[in-house]
Amino acid sequence: MSKAEKTRQFIIEKTAPLFNTRGFAGTSLNDMTAATGLTKGSIYGNFANKDEVALEAFECNLNKVENMIRDEMGKERSCRDKLLVYARVYDNFLKSPFPEGGCPILNTATEADDTHPGLRARASTAVTSWKKSIEKLVRKGMEQKEFRRETNPEQVALTMIAMIEGAIMITKLTGKNNYKNSVMLSVEDLVKNL
Amino acid sequence: MSKAEKTRQFIIEKTAPLFNTRGFAGTSLNDMTAATGLTKGSIYGNFANKDEVALEAFECNLNKVENMIRDEMGKERSCRDKLLVYARVYDNFLKSPFPEGGCPILNTATEADDTHPGLRARASTAVTSWKKSIEKLVRKGMEQKEFRRETNPEQVALTMIAMIEGAIMITKLTGKNNYKNSVMLSVEDLVKNL
Repeated sequence: MSKAEKTRQFIIEKTAPLFNTRGFAGTSLNDMTAATGLTKGSIYGNFANKDEVALEAFECNLNKVENMIRDEMGKERSCRDKLLVYARVYDNFLKSPFPEGGCPILNTATEADDTHPGLRARASTAVTSWKKSIEKLVRKGMEQKEFRRETNPEQVALTMIAMIEGAIMITKLTGKNNYKNSVMLSVEDLVKNL
Repeated sequence: MSKAEKTRQFIIEKTAPLFNTRGFAGTSLNDMTAATGLTKGSIYGNFANKDEVALEAFECNLNKVENMIRDEMGKERSCRDKLLVYARVYDNFLKSPFPEGGCPILNTATEADDTHPGLRARASTAVTSWKKSIEKLVRKGMEQKEFRRETNPEQVALTMIAMIEGAIMITKLTGKNNYKNSVMLSVEDLVKNL
């Protein structure tokens, strides 16, 4: 990695928790210099603008989540056990190495529509590819006769994602972590009944 | 209603869609004067500050949703049919007289934590009382042997709310209304299997 690449990476890693906690509109250049200890000139010497830093910060936060899920799934063999990883990871996400600020998709999805259209589009793609991963696992489970024939992979995927994101929102709002845990039990039930 | 009360009400109704679409931080005093056609002096002659308008606007948006649900539930007799109202109302919420901007709880829940703590607290109370209403219906259905004895009212309530809010988020982000409809089918399945 070149020195410039290292600086870019450093800025991304230091600002990723900021963007995920305060949102795109709520993160100022001053916040970014405070978090990195760098000057404005140094930040803008490495990125075209705040939009670009925010996009990379989203990528960084999303990668953390995806890597956690992938690592845990690697330990499981059946499609059912792989799908159950979602319930487990999100059940414990305050303890795990989850990105500070929670789910980057939820946080980005609900910012005002016009603040950073490119970032919204990226979050939308993230949901679509999450949906596809679950559908793929469900379809494989159906082929292997692990899951019932009448299962609808798209409905299962969207329902799991909605439950997870909705549960995070409820817990974020009420401060009650057991509310999320209760919904994760339903995710578990859903997967066990496929 | 006094003239002052009418003006207050007018301001609330005209700004409610703004706050629900752009968020608290994203709604400026200029937006408020543009939406109402009133002067800044007139708005602040009727409200202490933007915080107070936003709280009343939230109340107005929430009332719209609650009234829709109450009206539809009034047409149903069994606890199951009453619970199914949620799936139906949220399935069609682009067509119904739903507040512009979508679910006020979701929109408020996901604004940065420190922009308006009073508003967050109000949204949190709204989730808690929504949860209680569902729990009450589930418990009544259990007493009347409509639902199975082993049903967990709290888990059902939280799961339904998470599915609904998560589905709205997914649809808002991806622009795909059929994704919400797919999750509402799962809400329907959940209620039918109680």
